[in-house]
Amino acid sequence: MRIAVDAMGGDKAPDVVIEGTAEALELYPHIDIVLVGHLQKINPLVRNYGLQNHPRLTLVHAEQAIAMDDPSISAIRAKKHSSMTLCAELVHKGEADAVVSAGHTGAAVAATTFRMKLLPGVERAGIATIMPSTKGHFVFIDAGANVDCKPLHLAQFAVMGEIFARSMGVHRPKIGLLSIGEEDVKGNDLTKEAFKMLSSMPINFIGNVEGKLLYERIADVVVCDGFVGNIVLKSSESLAKALSFWMKKAFKKNPVRQAWAILATNAFKELKEVADYEEYGGAPLLGVNGVCIIGHGSSSPKAIKNAIRVAGEIVKFRVNEHITERLAECGVAVKQQ
Amino acid sequence: MRIAVDAMGGDKAPDVVIEGTAEALELYPHIDIVLVGHLQKINPLVRNYGLQNHPRLTLVHAEQAIAMDDPSISAIRAKKHSSMTLCAELVHKGEADAVVSAGHTGAAVAATTFRMKLLPGVERAGIATIMPSTKGHFVFIDAGANVDCKPLHLAQFAVMGEIFARSMGVHRPKIGLLSIGEEDVKGNDLTKEAFKMLSSMPINFIGNVEGKLLYERIADVVVCDGFVGNIVLKSSESLAKALSFWMKKAFKKNPVRQAWAILATNAFKELKEVADYEEYGGAPLLGVNGVCIIGHGSSSPKAIKNAIRVAGEIVKFRVNEHITERLAECGVAVKQQ
Repeated sequence: MRIAVDAMGGDKAPDVVIEGTAEALELYPHIDIVLVGHLQKINPLVRNYGLQNHPRLTLVHAEQAIAMDDPSISAIRAKKHSSMTLCAELVHKGEADAVVSAGHTGAAVAATTFRMKLLPGVERAGIATIMPSTKGHFVFIDAGANVDCKPLHLAQFAVMGEIFARSMGVHRPKIGLLSIGEEDVKGNDLTKEAFKMLSSMPINFIGNVEGKLLYERIADVVVCDGFVGNIVLKSSESLAKALSFWMKKAFKKNPVRQAWAILATNAFKELKEVADYEEYGGAPLLGVNGVCIIGHGSSSPKAIKNAIRVAGEIVKFRVNEHITERLAECGVAVKQQ
Repeated sequence: MRIAVDAMGGDKAPDVVIEGTAEALELYPHIDIVLVGHLQKINPLVRNYGLQNHPRLTLVHAEQAIAMDDPSISAIRAKKHSSMTLCAELVHKGEADAVVSAGHTGAAVAATTFRMKLLPGVERAGIATIMPSTKGHFVFIDAGANVDCKPLHLAQFAVMGEIFARSMGVHRPKIGLLSIGEEDVKGNDLTKEAFKMLSSMPINFIGNVEGKLLYERIADVVVCDGFVGNIVLKSSESLAKALSFWMKKAFKKNPVRQAWAILATNAFKELKEVADYEEYGGAPLLGVNGVCIIGHGSSSPKAIKNAIRVAGEIVKFRVNEHITERLAECGVAVKQQ
């Protein structure tokens, strides 16, 4: 199995990416890695981590890199030799089984959609994030690949999410639709139509999931459009940061409590592991014809290493083949043009 | 000033509503209250709180009450004698200046929209919630009144939010549009059109506000459609609950920490006040022809008391007159049919 890693993607690239790659090479002997980036920048780091003659590492030069603030689609069009584009091309040409990037999410979506194309029957790709809840974890799709959705897209996301949850061992995943009330008549035009479609599919559809129950995992897979998904995900990160800020402030108000604040910090660290994306390594972009894992921009080496592991698992479980089959079974595959 | 209070609205109604009313009567001598509910149920409580002969309290009998799980619009149609409907009628007939209800949000929106109608120039009403941030508070509109929005509705919400922020002393409120990226080209079809409209209005529009910065108050007013607004608000409540759960669990892991957990609870209580809706008493439904404050279903007496205070402030500041004028100034008033 060969995984292409975008060495230039992420806030602290290429350093943390190469450190994560080194960890992955050591831990996962079944995975070969193709590191794609500007050789002048990555070669010294490759030597630093003692990887210059590693038998399972190949380096591929990319003249360009996509910056975090580049506009996504135009960046992909303008930067034809970017590391992200080359990674997608390697998968498209069969020279790699998957791509991992912690770079610009929009650019990763655009590059893979343009170069690798979509799976047969798929009309839009969706980002499947793993979210924490008080009762374990759940799959949240679409976390931001596709902002203007039709009901069919949500139905396809449900299938992709179902297969992804199965790949993680959930036997018959419960699928919920993110909406504003429990009853089928509650929602906006999009979700009301999607509700009907999901109800008619041979999946374990449990109906609407309200925002107020999101973090209690009443479903294994929660489906929404990418606009709502991105905002829920990002505002949740923002709130968690704010709550930690308020908590520290409350502790500091009282001088006696200040000492406890230090101890509380230890509890916070454990908490971080409950909720942290690092453990899950990144979110697969499902629906593209190839495997693509998108890491958080602020990925640590550990997150990169885990993203490589997750990519390997998705290839091994043949998630894409299962998605294609299941879309047809559920009657929501579109005819190819 | 007379405020109609829906005695039957809320999870713990009528008890907490009457307790909150008693507090408001004592604290706000300029406010008269009309308590609307089933007299058989409210009379004993009114006596309990020593309000039976209160010179500034009037009781109005309502044969019906809307349950929290009634479907909103049909409930309002079916229950013409509900306390919520009668409150809205009192305002419509000029017998009260405002209505306060901690009941079913959808029913409150439906009852006030049907009975009180909308303000001249307004096409949809929006719920304006006050949200906490690490740098104070901001107005978040629409928190769930109107799920399928046109760009014009978001433009009108911006004006309503601006006037509401002004009523709380913000001189020239910064208005942001909740979206998925900072640039004007980022967003869905709705927000991209709304962005253009907001840019052309004589307001202090600062552009898109991303989810990741929501709780850092880069704007005084954040505008979104009611579907997104409801989900962001409710999923934030859900996450705050989950974080508190994880925190307690992390504390309990270590027996020494257990003692500290008790102390941490005190810090949590203070935190609750930073973030708590109780202090703000409820969210005004803006755009209806009359003042309506919607409280949280789980309102405490303190929240009810504060909702009554906020209703009084909105009446006093003549928020509705300002909204009508400002919609015209901004060129986003619709012609009445």
